[in-house]
Amino acid sequence: MRYRTFRLHILRSTTALVLATSTFGAAARADEGMWTMDNLPTRQLKQRYGFTPSAEWISRVTQASARLTLGCSASFVSADGLVMTNHHCANECLAELSPKGENWFQNGFSSKGQASEPQCPAMELDRLDRITDVTATMGKALAGQQGAAYSQAQKAAEAGIQKDCVAGDPTHWRCDVVTLYHGGRTALYRYKRYQDVRLVFAPDQNAAFFGGDPDNFNFPRYDLDLTFLRAYENGHPAKVTYFPFDAEGPKDGQLVFTSGNPGSTSREEPVAQLQLTRDLELPSTYGYLSTLDGVLWQYGRQGAQQTQDAQDMLFGVENSLKVYAGWLQTLADPAMMATKQKYETGLRAWIDADPARKATYGDPWTKLGSALDKERALNVRYTMIEGGPRGNPRGFQSDLFHYAKILVRGAAERAKPDAQRLSAFHDANLPAVEDALKSPAPVHADLDRTLLAFSLTRLRQALGADDATVHQVLGQDSPDIRANTLVDGSKLADPAVRMALWTGGQAAIDASTDPMIVLVRTIEPTARALRDQWDNDIVSVQRQTSETISKARFARDGAGSYPDATFTQRLSFGVVKGWNENGKQVPAFTTFAGLYDRATGSDPFRLTQPWIDAKPHLDMKTKFDFASTNDIIGGNSGSPVIDARGHAVGLIFDGNIHSLGGDFVYDGSQNRAVAVDTSAILAALRTVYKNQAVADELVKGHL
Amino acid sequence: MRYRTFRLHILRSTTALVLATSTFGAAARADEGMWTMDNLPTRQLKQRYGFTPSAEWISRVTQASARLTLGCSASFVSADGLVMTNHHCANECLAELSPKGENWFQNGFSSKGQASEPQCPAMELDRLDRITDVTATMGKALAGQQGAAYSQAQKAAEAGIQKDCVAGDPTHWRCDVVTLYHGGRTALYRYKRYQDVRLVFAPDQNAAFFGGDPDNFNFPRYDLDLTFLRAYENGHPAKVTYFPFDAEGPKDGQLVFTSGNPGSTSREEPVAQLQLTRDLELPSTYGYLSTLDGVLWQYGRQGAQQTQDAQDMLFGVENSLKVYAGWLQTLADPAMMATKQKYETGLRAWIDADPARKATYGDPWTKLGSALDKERALNVRYTMIEGGPRGNPRGFQSDLFHYAKILVRGAAERAKPDAQRLSAFHDANLPAVEDALKSPAPVHADLDRTLLAFSLTRLRQALGADDATVHQVLGQDSPDIRANTLVDGSKLADPAVRMALWTGGQAAIDASTDPMIVLVRTIEPTARALRDQWDNDIVSVQRQTSETISKARFARDGAGSYPDATFTQRLSFGVVKGWNENGKQVPAFTTFAGLYDRATGSDPFRLTQPWIDAKPHLDMKTKFDFASTNDIIGGNSGSPVIDARGHAVGLIFDGNIHSLGGDFVYDGSQNRAVAVDTSAILAALRTVYKNQAVADELVKGHL
Repeated sequence: MRYRTFRLHILRSTTALVLATSTFGAAARADEGMWTMDNLPTRQLKQRYGFTPSAEWISRVTQASARLTLGCSASFVSADGLVMTNHHCANECLAELSPKGENWFQNGFSSKGQASEPQCPAMELDRLDRITDVTATMGKALAGQQGAAYSQAQKAAEAGIQKDCVAGDPTHWRCDVVTLYHGGRTALYRYKRYQDVRLVFAPDQNAAFFGGDPDNFNFPRYDLDLTFLRAYENGHPAKVTYFPFDAEGPKDGQLVFTSGNPGSTSREEPVAQLQLTRDLELPSTYGYLSTLDGVLWQYGRQGAQQTQDAQDMLFGVENSLKVYAGWLQTLADPAMMATKQKYETGLRAWIDADPARKATYGDPWTKLGSALDKERALNVRYTMIEGGPRGNPRGFQSDLFHYAKILVRGAAERAKPDAQRLSAFHDANLPAVEDALKSPAPVHADLDRTLLAFSLTRLRQALGADDATVHQVLGQDSPDIRANTLVDGSKLADPAVRMALWTGGQAAIDASTDPMIVLVRTIEPTARALRDQWDNDIVSVQRQTSETISKARFARDGAGSYPDATFTQRLSFGVVKGWNENGKQVPAFTTFAGLYDRATGSDPFRLTQPWIDAKPHLDMKTKFDFASTNDIIGGNSGSPVIDARGHAVGLIFDGNIHSLGGDFVYDGSQNRAVAVDTSAILAALRTVYKNQAVADELVKGHL
Repeated sequence: MRYRTFRLHILRSTTALVLATSTFGAAARADEGMWTMDNLPTRQLKQRYGFTPSAEWISRVTQASARLTLGCSASFVSADGLVMTNHHCANECLAELSPKGENWFQNGFSSKGQASEPQCPAMELDRLDRITDVTATMGKALAGQQGAAYSQAQKAAEAGIQKDCVAGDPTHWRCDVVTLYHGGRTALYRYKRYQDVRLVFAPDQNAAFFGGDPDNFNFPRYDLDLTFLRAYENGHPAKVTYFPFDAEGPKDGQLVFTSGNPGSTSREEPVAQLQLTRDLELPSTYGYLSTLDGVLWQYGRQGAQQTQDAQDMLFGVENSLKVYAGWLQTLADPAMMATKQKYETGLRAWIDADPARKATYGDPWTKLGSALDKERALNVRYTMIEGGPRGNPRGFQSDLFHYAKILVRGAAERAKPDAQRLSAFHDANLPAVEDALKSPAPVHADLDRTLLAFSLTRLRQALGADDATVHQVLGQDSPDIRANTLVDGSKLADPAVRMALWTGGQAAIDASTDPMIVLVRTIEPTARALRDQWDNDIVSVQRQTSETISKARFARDGAGSYPDATFTQRLSFGVVKGWNENGKQVPAFTTFAGLYDRATGSDPFRLTQPWIDAKPHLDMKTKFDFASTNDIIGGNSGSPVIDARGHAVGLIFDGNIHSLGGDFVYDGSQNRAVAVDTSAILAALRTVYKNQAVADELVKGHL
């Protein structure tokens, strides 16, 4: 597993996302590129593969693709809203829906027919509806602004654009303002929003993640990392455009595409930013996650319930660790850094060579350097106390804390005019927040206590025992005792309690004696101040300087390439192909035979009984997983692999170990995407899981 | 706590130790320097402090200093063999001696008089007896040798020198061949060996390590990190030269010395080596230890027994993590690296400028580069399967495995002539090995299972599930199941079983069916091959190239400075002094008043009842801990701080956070050693612990 995005990077600073930029250099090489649908590399496709996408092809690919807001990609594979994505993209849904005493995440799930498909809590699927260029509007709103005023103007402009876009119906439309090409272009993405997504089929975890952490990011591979969901509208299966499902899968050397939502790349980040990532952000994140990995691993060994409660988070953490290990290795490569430095030096020289250009662009690198010095000074406090917008801060890893923070901050934000709020609390985004608060997903109290005790320990260690915030948080208690008091005393595990506090607004928050609410209320002024500093002194400068650099690059090189990834829809092209590993050729395909050869009987190489029973009835030569040269990254999890006809031939779920450097540079000789073959999906449905209904729907293209 | 050496770095590759070299640049600045007793910086001491050490002073300091072979320093503080060292240097002894149901490590210990002092298992104390220069002998033995032949010649020459030195009495003498100045000088250190070391007094852990991990490497500090031991000879207290114990402690600004055994520094490592440490060795070690930290932390939370069993290792791991975090930060400093690069470039230019020099020195940097490329390729396999000589390999963290490995390898090695053995199994070193095998220290089976399961998981993750060694080790089992089988089936927890296998030699090993012996036997050919490659292709090249670089440096700059640390006796000088932290002055001393102010009642800021009861009877203005500019490093733990008269005024136990860069560079403006004041030791003995016997012995200087 791997290629879902934000949850995997939940603990990472948001810098990389903020600085998402255009590709390195002007011309993408080999099969490089994550292309927007309105700027496909038609010349390259024609020259290299003799393929020219028709307007109908482009439209179908756009309409049949989707994304899960939790950070994955997906596709429609029947006219009746059947959605194909990865098993690891439905982990939470499977865990949360499991009835007492059952474990669907571990043991799999088959609905007893369309009428009895259960709804995944808090799952949202978005289908791209239209893209509008708002570069001019945003440019006007931000002209001449600096620091806090810049942040404020940006928030206000985005809120206005989004508000207009959802047209009073935020439960049906989702609108995101997306910065492309490092500020070279700003686009408004409107999505059709499906908040009723139900579970149709999932294999058992042993099959979905065969080989587990040891095999993760490796190939040859034998995983059925698959889940089928269904989008509903008004209580009925949604009628959609879809990819016809190919029963044969692709051939070696065949041209294939992926249509998905790569989360974030950093291929055009300034060198100073990459150095900060290498020297500060990555080591600190890697250390924190490694320790958390150890805590969760040992927690899971304490019993079957603990294993079950911790496993989703454990997989996410171990997955991220592999990614970051790859990043550390890539960023430690002096040749790679030297190439980027050379490019940057050239661009600076180009600016400096002409007084007019110097007047236009100034010296964004020096400005950025000062902002990065501020980040260096603020990083530990910020990540411990306030952290990124998508995850808890490192000092407070607790579901209950997370709810309390949404409630406390949400009450204050909703009291402001829409344009002045933090983006998560814009009117257009409130349905998603409420959906999360209403989620019936259980809070595992013992795990929550453990994670909170762990993170409070880290908070004290990072800031020191004499720090004022540490005193506020711990008082005279040890982290363990404090975590127990907070988790045992809080009622926020109950959705009804949360919704009462949400609807009660600021008055309810002020009156609450829930210890978790009291804690968040206490540290909120500190956390707010940190966020203001971070946004105004660091992020807004990064954004402005990036934009300036990007404009200089456009002026010199033109804008013929693709923008860095932004968790928006992109097409990548490539061919089904193995690679050469230390002189040995790795074939493009694996087969069922390889799976059975590799099964040892012990986790994570253990097959469940349905697979053992099915062996005599399966064709051992059936292709299982395959590698291709497509340029993908975290967030592409669940992307369909499609052929030149626009039919689904595979399902992306991973990249090989060489793909980990893809955040910074694409290397076509070894970087490979890894997918499940559609022929394996059909065989598994029919022969292993005996789910003829889903198999038939795939073949027919409708229910 | 901190400043003990090898155990803290137990998991680190040995490169840094191997490459211990002379100081950076020719002239040490400020109070920099870890000086050998035969080359004290008399001119600097005279100029800066008007102090000239007399021959008697030097002799007394040499004779009254000692080291604990587990990686600490110590000193004699009474004529009857009373030894002062740190509490954290006696962790194992305190834990291992605790009778069933008691916890001396946690609760402290006071003997009921000299006659009832219990012996610490497997503890050895060495007092330096003499230093002999063997540069010429070694030079002759190694002349013209390369690769495997070089390693072999080195082993043989060292074995011969050591054998002569112990003069047939290895239980009374310990002889180490020590490479100083990066190969510029080789010295033979002969020590008087005390293998009967008994426990006299230790405070409770809350007082010894007040502030715990959060305060570790921080100052102001309030720790009584102290243990008194006693060296015995023939069953009686050893008669020794000692440091008179000063009842007042030092004054602010006073000249003070430390006499101890700094373990290892890397101040003169070639830049390419530092880069490898920064980019490969450190990140991988940091990640591994961080995960282990999480495992141990959660393990300790499972119950009181688990807490007790895991705490010593947990403290060691957390301590190392702080050290490595400091290293990562120091090595990420481009200015520091640039300075070192500039120095190196200058030296290379000096060699290249003269054909005769070029003929003499050649190009050691290019040679070293090739060896480092080999390390890059071999590092993961080596550290997972074979590892450093002082710790278990990362794939096999288990006490039982450790015993099995000593037994299997020891049997094979002892069958060879002395000169051809690995150094740990030279005749001169066998008493220490046997002592370890006989140790009555318990093996905590549940913890051993946990650590083995953890490390087998890492082994598989690092080498891949298809690796032949992984197959040999795991077979069809999961790491958890395999660890259970190995630990549950092995009888090596019993010292008698171990000694039977040891005395039985190769025949006993071949016949053994103990599963841990069988495992080690199975992988021994692989582990041996890795060690040979490592020693011959990497370490011997590092050694030779370091020696060449060192000789060039000596030729150009002269040899007036101190050698990099080698866990041999060194004197450092400095003054008692605070420092400026972000514009705020940190005072040099803390007091008892500060301790009571800081106590919250919760661990690790909780005072035990004796301290609470003693409060009204203590003078709150008593100095507790102090900071000084002395240049120390891991291994200096337990070093006495002495004044110009040669009296003990303090006890080193830590450095501040700025001292962590001291492995690579000394910064006199902020780098501080941290010690317990002798006046606090006396007050605590008399008023808190009511141990008048030890206090009286300190004041009188004898029993």
